[in-house]
Amino acid sequence: MCGIVGYIGKAQAAPILIKGLSKLEYRGYDSAGIAVFGDQVQVVKAKGRLAELDEKVKNMGGVKGCMGIGHTRWATHGAPSDKNAHPHTSMNGRISVVHNGIIENYIQLKSELEKQGYVFVSETDTEVIAQLFDSLYNGDLVDTLIRVIGKVRGSYALGIVCSEKPDEFVAVRKDSPLLVGISEDGNYIASDIPAVLEYTKDYYLLNDNEIVVMKKDGVTILDLDKNEIKKDIYHVDWDISAAEKGGYDYFMMKEIMEQPKALKATISPRLDNGQIVLDQLKYTDEDIKNINRIHIVACGSAWHAGIVGKYVIEDLARIPVEVDLASEFRYRNPILNKNDVCIIISQSGETADTLAALREAKRQGIRILSIVNVVGSSIARDSDDVLYTWAGPEIAVATTKGYSTQVALMYLIALKFGQVRGCVSAEEAAKLVAELESVPEKIEQLFALDGKMKELAEGHANAKDVFIIGRGIDYAVALECSLKLKEISYIHSEAYAAGELKHGTISLIEEGTLVVAIATQDTLYEKLVSNVKEVKARGANVLAIAKEGNTEIAEVADEVIYIPAIDDRFTASLDVIPMQLFAYYVAVARGCDVDKPRNLAKSVTVE
Amino acid sequence: MCGIVGYIGKAQAAPILIKGLSKLEYRGYDSAGIAVFGDQVQVVKAKGRLAELDEKVKNMGGVKGCMGIGHTRWATHGAPSDKNAHPHTSMNGRISVVHNGIIENYIQLKSELEKQGYVFVSETDTEVIAQLFDSLYNGDLVDTLIRVIGKVRGSYALGIVCSEKPDEFVAVRKDSPLLVGISEDGNYIASDIPAVLEYTKDYYLLNDNEIVVMKKDGVTILDLDKNEIKKDIYHVDWDISAAEKGGYDYFMMKEIMEQPKALKATISPRLDNGQIVLDQLKYTDEDIKNINRIHIVACGSAWHAGIVGKYVIEDLARIPVEVDLASEFRYRNPILNKNDVCIIISQSGETADTLAALREAKRQGIRILSIVNVVGSSIARDSDDVLYTWAGPEIAVATTKGYSTQVALMYLIALKFGQVRGCVSAEEAAKLVAELESVPEKIEQLFALDGKMKELAEGHANAKDVFIIGRGIDYAVALECSLKLKEISYIHSEAYAAGELKHGTISLIEEGTLVVAIATQDTLYEKLVSNVKEVKARGANVLAIAKEGNTEIAEVADEVIYIPAIDDRFTASLDVIPMQLFAYYVAVARGCDVDKPRNLAKSVTVE
Repeated sequence: MCGIVGYIGKAQAAPILIKGLSKLEYRGYDSAGIAVFGDQVQVVKAKGRLAELDEKVKNMGGVKGCMGIGHTRWATHGAPSDKNAHPHTSMNGRISVVHNGIIENYIQLKSELEKQGYVFVSETDTEVIAQLFDSLYNGDLVDTLIRVIGKVRGSYALGIVCSEKPDEFVAVRKDSPLLVGISEDGNYIASDIPAVLEYTKDYYLLNDNEIVVMKKDGVTILDLDKNEIKKDIYHVDWDISAAEKGGYDYFMMKEIMEQPKALKATISPRLDNGQIVLDQLKYTDEDIKNINRIHIVACGSAWHAGIVGKYVIEDLARIPVEVDLASEFRYRNPILNKNDVCIIISQSGETADTLAALREAKRQGIRILSIVNVVGSSIARDSDDVLYTWAGPEIAVATTKGYSTQVALMYLIALKFGQVRGCVSAEEAAKLVAELESVPEKIEQLFALDGKMKELAEGHANAKDVFIIGRGIDYAVALECSLKLKEISYIHSEAYAAGELKHGTISLIEEGTLVVAIATQDTLYEKLVSNVKEVKARGANVLAIAKEGNTEIAEVADEVIYIPAIDDRFTASLDVIPMQLFAYYVAVARGCDVDKPRNLAKSVTVE
Repeated sequence: MCGIVGYIGKAQAAPILIKGLSKLEYRGYDSAGIAVFGDQVQVVKAKGRLAELDEKVKNMGGVKGCMGIGHTRWATHGAPSDKNAHPHTSMNGRISVVHNGIIENYIQLKSELEKQGYVFVSETDTEVIAQLFDSLYNGDLVDTLIRVIGKVRGSYALGIVCSEKPDEFVAVRKDSPLLVGISEDGNYIASDIPAVLEYTKDYYLLNDNEIVVMKKDGVTILDLDKNEIKKDIYHVDWDISAAEKGGYDYFMMKEIMEQPKALKATISPRLDNGQIVLDQLKYTDEDIKNINRIHIVACGSAWHAGIVGKYVIEDLARIPVEVDLASEFRYRNPILNKNDVCIIISQSGETADTLAALREAKRQGIRILSIVNVVGSSIARDSDDVLYTWAGPEIAVATTKGYSTQVALMYLIALKFGQVRGCVSAEEAAKLVAELESVPEKIEQLFALDGKMKELAEGHANAKDVFIIGRGIDYAVALECSLKLKEISYIHSEAYAAGELKHGTISLIEEGTLVVAIATQDTLYEKLVSNVKEVKARGANVLAIAKEGNTEIAEVADEVIYIPAIDDRFTASLDVIPMQLFAYYVAVARGCDVDKPRNLAKSVTVE
C-alpha cells in the first residue's frame, strides 16, 4: 500500500513520476501527489484517483524540472484529502517528503516539534518527518537523514527533496519496500519494479537503513556510519505486456482465466515422471523426517491457502501444523522448537506483518521456507528456502491466481513430505499426483459456468449478508470465497464451519438470506446436507457447490453448482473458481471498481 | 435443542407434560406438541411458543389420560409448522413418537417405506421413525424398538407410545440427552432435570441404547439383548428457585449480574493461601511436566473461552495449545500423541459435537480433562478428569456467566501448569493469583457502566454491520463480544484480528459503520491505536475499550469505555462485561426476545 517513485536525470521528471505512479496505483489510490524541483520545489497534490492529479498538472501547463518525487496513497493516518496527500512539506517549505509505512512515535515527536514552534496542517505521521528533518537540517542531507532515522520508530520508505539542494535527493527504507533503478538517462527510486520498468531493467535492491544519495550521474549507497556500500546490479528480464489487461474489462477476470496456465507453470516443473521434485528446497530426507511441527504464517488470502495447507499436510504427512495470522504471530511469543519449520506465504513477498513475523521466527532460530510470487522480494531474500509460485504479475487487488498457486504448492509440499515420511505409499502418491495434474484442465471445464455464475450473481447483487459454510477443507475454501465477495462487492459475507452455525450465527438467517453451502467432501456430505436443511428451515436461499453425481443436495438447495469429480483433498482448487466468478459478477452488477476496491491496496506494506 | 418429556402414573398427563415442556423451552421453541393416551391416543400440536399449545389444549377442554409424551422443537428438518411439530404419528395412527436428534439415513429409509405404501405428511426425519416402528411392529414394544435401532443411523432420544398398549411406553437415547425420573406417583422421562424437578428428585441416568420400559408402577431398563440393567438412583438436591428470574426482565441480565458470585464460586475453592489447588485433577506434577500438547475442543462461546486459554496457557505454561471447533475436530483425523491432553469445554456437558469429539479423542487413547457446568452430564461422565464451573443453572440461550467461569478455569489451569513446569516463579504466581482474585470486584465496578452502555446501545440499535477488533487476548474476547451481539440482536457483527482488517474486510467500512476496538493489551496498544486511525480514515464510528489511564485513544475514538487496571492476561474477564451489557441493550432496543433468540437453542444436542 502506498507507492513511491522518484527521479533525477536528463528528462522532465513530472511525466516519469505520473506514469510510474500509474503502475503503482494498485498499491493505494486515495490521493496522489508530486514534488518537482525546477527553479524551486513545486508540490501538486490531489485527492482521488491518479487521473485527478494528472488533470491538475495539465491544467497548470505542466510542472518543470528534472528531479522529483511522487506518491500514491492508501490512507492510514487521516482521511483521504488533498491536505493529507503526499508529498508533505516542512512549514517553511524547505523539505518535501514522500513516505510509505507508519511512524509509531509520531504523536510524541509532533508534540516536541510543536513546542519548538512548528505548526502542522495535516493529520499524517509523514508531516512529522518533514518538520523533523527541517528542524535537524545542518546543510547535509545524509547527516540529517541519519539523525532523523535515530529519532523515528516504525516502518518507512522515504524519498526526501530539499529546496537548497537542486542536484540531489536522498532515500532510505526500513520494513517497507523501496528499490533503486539506474540508467544512463537518469536514476530512479520506486516501491516496485513495474513503476520504472519502462526506463530501466537494472536495479539495486536495498536493505534496511541503507542511505541512498541520488544524483543525475550516479547513485551512492551508505551505511549509518557513512561508509559506502557496493551493490551488485540486479537485472530483470521481464515482458512489460504481462502487466496489461489484454482485452478483459478488469485485471481480475484476466487473472481468473490465467489460473490453469499459472497452475501448470507452478506444478509441472516440480513433477518428474510422476515424482515430486522440490529441488529448490535444500531439505534432505532426514530433515523432512525430523520436522516436529510446522508453523504457517500469512495474512489474508495467503492465510486461507495456509489453512488448506494445514488440512493436507496433517492428513498426508502427519506433521502437526499451526496456522497463524502474521499480525498475531509476531506478538504472541509463539512456542517454537529446534525441529520446527516456519512456512511463510505472501504473493508480493513484501507484506509487512508477514515479513516481521518471518524475522521473529528467524530470530528464534527456526528454518524458514517461504512461498512467494515475486522473485527477489524481501521475504524471498530473508528465507532459508523459497518455493516460487509461478503465477506471473498479479495486478487486481483481490487475488485469484496468487491464491490458487499457493494452494498448489501446499499440495506439493504435503505430498512430498508425506512420501518421504512414509505416510503415503508410492502407489497412492502416483494416484494423487495424477489428480493434482488434472486440476488445470478441470478449472478450464469450470469456466463453462461463467454465464451461469453471472446470472446467479445478478440475482443476488442486492444481498446484504451472505454466509458461506463448509466442513473440513470445504471450510478452508469458504473463508477464501467469503473474502472475495467482501473485498470487491462490499457485501458483508462471512464463512462458517457448517457445524458451528447453530451455536449462534444461525440467528442471523432470515427469509431469503443467501447461504452458499460447499459440500464437496464425500465423507462429510450427509452432515452438510443436514446443515443445509437447518438453514432452509429458517428460510435461507441456498446455493450449493457439490461434486458431479452428488445430486441429493439438489432436493434441498435452491441452486447447485457441480464441480468435476476429484479426490476430496483437491476440491479446494476447484470450489474457489465458481465463487471467484460469482464475486466478480456481483461486484460488476453493483457497479464496483473490481480491480481497485475502496479502502484496499495490493501488497500491504504497513502493519 | 428440542426438549422431551414423558409421563405415566396416577395423575393427568397433559398438565405435567406442558409444565415440563415450559421448563425445557430454552432448548427450542419453534413448535410444541403432546400425545396423551386416554380412551385412545390424542395428539395436539401447535407452531410457535408453548403458550400456543397450552391455549389450544384449553380450548379443547383439556386432553384426558394418565400417560403421554410431549416435545418442544428446534427445527432441523423442515420449517417450523404444525405439520412438522412433534409428536409424529404413523400413517395408521398406531405409533406416536417424540424425537430429539438427527436420523442420518432417513432419506433412504423413507424411500423404502414409501415402496411399502407408507405416505408421509411431514418433512421431518422423525416421521420416518414412527412409520418404521409401525412397519416392524410385532405386538412387543421392546422387540420392535430393538429392530428400529438396528436400522437407523444418527443420534436420538425417543419416546414412543402405541395405541395398542395403554399401560406402557418405551424410550431410548443415543448421543442425545434423556433421563428417567421416578416417584411414587408416577414415572417420567425428560431431556433435562429441571423439566420434572417439581415432581421428583430421584433419577436414573441412561447410557446409549439402553431401552427403557415405562409403566405406572415401575421402570425397567434393558440392554439390546433384553437383559435387565440395574441402575443406582441419582438423587439431586437442588433449589428450584435458582431457575427463576428474580425481578429481572430477562434471565440474561440476571446471569450477567451473577458473574461476580459465579466467579468467586469457581475461583475461591481452588485457592489455598495464595496457592492454586486443582484437587479434582488427578494429575501428578510429573504428569503436568510431561504434557506434550494440549488440544482444546469446544463449540460457540466455549470455543472462545478456549482461545483465551490458548493465549494464557502458551504464555504461562509454554505448552503448545491447539483450539479446535468440535464439529471440525472429530472429522479431520487430528494428530494426537501419547502425552497430549484434550481439554473439552461445554456449559451443558451435552453439546453433541463436543461429546462426539471427546469420544474420538478417547478412542485414540488420550487423556480427557473436561470443563463443564452441569454435574453428571454426559461429557462430565465420559471424562478422565472434570473441573466444574460453579456458575449455577444458566437459562438464557446467550451465555454470560457460563463463559466467564470457563475463562476463569483457563486462567487457573495456565497458572497451575505454569508453576509446576517452572515457567512461573512463586513470586509471579502470587502476584497473578492476586490479580485473578480481584476480577469479581472489578466486574462489580464495571456494572456502574450499565446506564452508559444502555445509552450507547440505543444509539447504535439500528446498526446493520458491526466490526469488533483486537489483538492478542483482545482478539479472543472480540470473538465472544461479536457472538453476543449476533445471537441476541441479529446484527451482523464480525470479529477481526485488528492487523488483518486491511487484508480485505476494511473495504466494508463506510461512513458511520460501528467498529468496537478492544485496546486493553499494554504491549499492543500503539498498534491498535494505528488500526483505529485506519478505520477512522474510512469514516468508521469507533467505540473503544481501554484500560484506565490509557487516554490517548480518546483522541481518535468517538467513545471510550475504561476498564479497571489489571494484568494484560486477565483483561478478557473484564472486556466482555460492557459488551454483554451493550448486546443486551441493543437487543432490548430492537424488541428482540433476549432469552430466546430466533433459531437458537441452549445446549445444542444435534450435530
